[in-house]
Amino acid sequence: MPATGVLLLSCPDQRGVVAAVADFIASHNGNIVHAEQHTDEIEKVFFQRVEFEVDGFDLNRDEILGAFAPVAKRFDMRADLRYTDVKPRVAIMASKQSHCLFDLLTRWRSGELPADIVAVHADLVQHMGVPYVHLPVTADTKTAQERQVLETLAQYRVDLVVLARYMQILSPTLVDAYPSRIINIHHSFLPAFIGANPYRQAHDRGVKIIGATAHYVTEELDEGPILDQEVTRVTHRDSVADLTRKGRDLETIVLARAVRAHLEHRVLVYGRKTVVFG
Amino acid sequence: MPATGVLLLSCPDQRGVVAAVADFIASHNGNIVHAEQHTDEIEKVFFQRVEFEVDGFDLNRDEILGAFAPVAKRFDMRADLRYTDVKPRVAIMASKQSHCLFDLLTRWRSGELPADIVAVHADLVQHMGVPYVHLPVTADTKTAQERQVLETLAQYRVDLVVLARYMQILSPTLVDAYPSRIINIHHSFLPAFIGANPYRQAHDRGVKIIGATAHYVTEELDEGPILDQEVTRVTHRDSVADLTRKGRDLETIVLARAVRAHLEHRVLVYGRKTVVFG
Amino acid sequence: MPATGVLLLSCPDQRGVVAAVADFIASHNGNIVHAEQHTDEIEKVFFQRVEFEVDGFDLNRDEILGAFAPVAKRFDMRADLRYTDVKPRVAIMASKQSHCLFDLLTRWRSGELPADIVAVHADLVQHMGVPYVHLPVTADTKTAQERQVLETLAQYRVDLVVLARYMQILSPTLVDAYPSRIINIHHSFLPAFIGANPYRQAHDRGVKIIGATAHYVTEELDEGPILDQEVTRVTHRDSVADLTRKGRDLETIVLARAVRAHLEHRVLVYGRKTVVFG
Amino acid sequence: MPATGVLLLSCPDQRGVVAAVADFIASHNGNIVHAEQHTDEIEKVFFQRVEFEVDGFDLNRDEILGAFAPVAKRFDMRADLRYTDVKPRVAIMASKQSHCLFDLLTRWRSGELPADIVAVHADLVQHMGVPYVHLPVTADTKTAQERQVLETLAQYRVDLVVLARYMQILSPTLVDAYPSRIINIHHSFLPAFIGANPYRQAHDRGVKIIGATAHYVTEELDEGPILDQEVTRVTHRDSVADLTRKGRDLETIVLARAVRAHLEHRVLVYGRKTVVFG
Repeated sequence: MPATGVLLLSCPDQRGVVAAVADFIASHNGNIVHAEQHTDEIEKVFFQRVEFEVDGFDLNRDEILGAFAPVAKRFDMRADLRYTDVKPRVAIMASKQSHCLFDLLTRWRSGELPADIVAVHADLVQHMGVPYVHLPVTADTKTAQERQVLETLAQYRVDLVVLARYMQILSPTLVDAYPSRIINIHHSFLPAFIGANPYRQAHDRGVKIIGATAHYVTEELDEGPILDQEVTRVTHRDSVADLTRKGRDLETIVLARAVRAHLEHRVLVYGRKTVVFG
Repeated sequence: MPATGVLLLSCPDQRGVVAAVADFIASHNGNIVHAEQHTDEIEKVFFQRVEFEVDGFDLNRDEILGAFAPVAKRFDMRADLRYTDVKPRVAIMASKQSHCLFDLLTRWRSGELPADIVAVHADLVQHMGVPYVHLPVTADTKTAQERQVLETLAQYRVDLVVLARYMQILSPTLVDAYPSRIINIHHSFLPAFIGANPYRQAHDRGVKIIGATAHYVTEELDEGPILDQEVTRVTHRDSVADLTRKGRDLETIVLARAVRAHLEHRVLVYGRKTVVFG
Repeated sequence: MPATGVLLLSCPDQRGVVAAVADFIASHNGNIVHAEQHTDEIEKVFFQRVEFEVDGFDLNRDEILGAFAPVAKRFDMRADLRYTDVKPRVAIMASKQSHCLFDLLTRWRSGELPADIVAVHADLVQHMGVPYVHLPVTADTKTAQERQVLETLAQYRVDLVVLARYMQILSPTLVDAYPSRIINIHHSFLPAFIGANPYRQAHDRGVKIIGATAHYVTEELDEGPILDQEVTRVTHRDSVADLTRKGRDLETIVLARAVRAHLEHRVLVYGRKTVVFG
Repeated sequence: MPATGVLLLSCPDQRGVVAAVADFIASHNGNIVHAEQHTDEIEKVFFQRVEFEVDGFDLNRDEILGAFAPVAKRFDMRADLRYTDVKPRVAIMASKQSHCLFDLLTRWRSGELPADIVAVHADLVQHMGVPYVHLPVTADTKTAQERQVLETLAQYRVDLVVLARYMQILSPTLVDAYPSRIINIHHSFLPAFIGANPYRQAHDRGVKIIGATAHYVTEELDEGPILDQEVTRVTHRDSVADLTRKGRDLETIVLARAVRAHLEHRVLVYGRKTVVFG
């Protein structure tokens, strides 16, 4: 696949935005290979993802956003520009539960995830050749350990942090340093069963369907914008252990889908919601 | 299909229950056409549903539970006996939203629901020939109206009350009069979005899946034992109206499934949970 | 919702199409409220659905396609233009099985389907006030009956024919008269179980999932472009009657979704495939 | 979990089977911890799975089937007896595609599969410590290679062969040696898209849902009894590569579920169908 640029745009909803953006691309000899848009009719916000060929574009990559600035200004637009041949740098943080970590590494090895996985933090050494950092944490060392984590993320110039069943609540400092750039997998169908032991909570409540939720991390626990969810049917016969086992498959699949959507620059965040283009 | 008896049993888990029940049936020249069991390993409770042919059984219907009493006593067992040719008498209570009511009546007319629907309460007269009772309710008349409802249910000797989007919270008096015999459809994936306007709540939270839940009504709002749940995928493009429309299909299907399970004597309730045999 | 125009476009994939279309709209003071596109990378065909506000557009409705002709010519484009306030005229043909007919009429009454249902053909008179035509058919009268059907469709100026479990194979004459304008519901997950008695076929094969498929009718039986499919899980315990009952829910839902997609001008057909925009 | 015995029974449907089996267990001081049954009403065949505690049973393991023989004879019953603490010996055969192999090994390592995986055949050495046999095959060497395969399976005393995307059609000799003991994963929703390149076939047909099917291998290609199936939704936007990627997740999950059902002695085969107890 030839490299493409991806413009992620959001602005107050108004006339002429689509034409103005298409004109900008066309006027620089660009070619739009894919475009999607969405308007939030309640918030009156317009969102667009425009993917265009880099090849033949008559501006250099570092000139494009500057040239686009007048359009962005005219529509009071927030504009991000990414390139599909520049792979985001990803760190994965896991804990004793390694199924999500393992699954992501396997997909990455098979070419399914357009990323560079640059660091892995886990209790178990299942890093498959990726630089491996173990920063053990206890109640006493949490503050110091978070500082180490921040330093490590900075050192590796990480673009995206994936909490693959990390089982630690991050401090506001860490969360604020990576806004909409930390993805967590919660093992319930949020907002049901917030907090600890969601499978036990689900068992106690006697639900007939369980779920898993991938979301961006914000300061409020399990309240961040949802990227993706998946569910499966259970019955009275399923014990907590059965729910946990069935849930592992949900967790791995939904986390992988969410990470992939982020890495393909298909996600826009606003408030506590996401637009995930198809 | 020839008539069958259905024994619904529950007791503390212990050795020999299955054989004792099978022996009882066999010793009276009965034939088990279907049996299912479940043990809750945490609560240590045993549940069984035993369906046997009435034809050829060497006791009259009204003698069977008496003859079974020693077995029930020995195992400290709760035993219910129903017959598949004795149709439960059902009342459906709806409100302005009539899709669930309409769907249940259509399924009933087509022979899908083994019941006699004996009364319908709704704001709209879509009763399809079923005795129709309109008992309007306002904040001021709620107590009096509930008394009328209770009288009507008694008058029609109702076995099961189905709240097909009734939109009123029942008083403890009414709930207590029909324990595990009032089924409600809640238009969310419980326990997410308890209370009013769940589709708006779901839209505000930005979930990627919505659901509907059929449950027995207890005194705690939306906390009763869950019979069945169903979900469907939504995206950022779905407005509250879209969620409502998509949700209607979930509500009709999950309520019909739950009512059918109840009418086929496949449900056992314990605590706030259900065993729904297949 | 204010009226909008919907341009449905397809052409050989090439540079500049998106900008040319956006320019055309903008140059006539139009405003694009939604646009979606797709490129079939194998067939090298570009598809687009552009929805724009009618209000404020500086051409009359009957002038727009003419003014767009140079753009269409330049890109060798097929262009259709529809308006969301012009409701397609729909005829529904059913047979003894009436659940899909009934469901469509109910949704239509509730405002869910943007159409005028102008005629219903069914063995059972469940027409809910819609003009009702019963044209009985036997092996001997099939040719004559089809001529009557064609005349009736012409008389009612029908835009879309929905076969809601019609159970008759249409002749090529009828099919050719309504290309991509006859939607059929087949009660299997096509291409599995083509032809008669698909639920029996599914039962004999012992599948663990059954489905239903809505497709446009072409001259080849059950081979037309698929609009939508839905499935549900079954087990060894489900008889053919159970599959039929469970399947009815699939059929009604998937047919309603497909009809709705067509009526909202979200479908483009090419070869034996469809693009169904979201 | 204490060890249990599992009786898998099938016989012509007739009165008294359930009681006779329960009596047999009870008369030897056994305790039934779980029992499920099914009657095929068309074929008039009765199936039962009875799980009972080994501890306390008053016969040795190798005496039980002999003691049960009169019951089996009386009802013309086929009876198998297995023990949950005797792990089946499994060989996995894969090819260049290793996602299913890898997934099964991971689940096995995590304790999810009650089996001894004794041999792995694959083009890639991803055997995670399991004895590894690479028996390369070409068109010319197929017969000789199959002989080697048979010898290897015999040498390792294999109970179950799992074809985890093996991509070779087995000869009748091999198939006949392991009746209902070879599980294959086919990457389509059978019986749709039998044979080669099912994802390409699915793409060409324009289906809106794809699937995967786990089945026992018989001499007829892709016609063996189905153990489990799973599906996922696709759109016009999914290329063959996308279908392949999405399908991989289906394949791994459905194969793992099917293998687990077999290993837990929950499957009975009759004709080309399966009973899979829950």
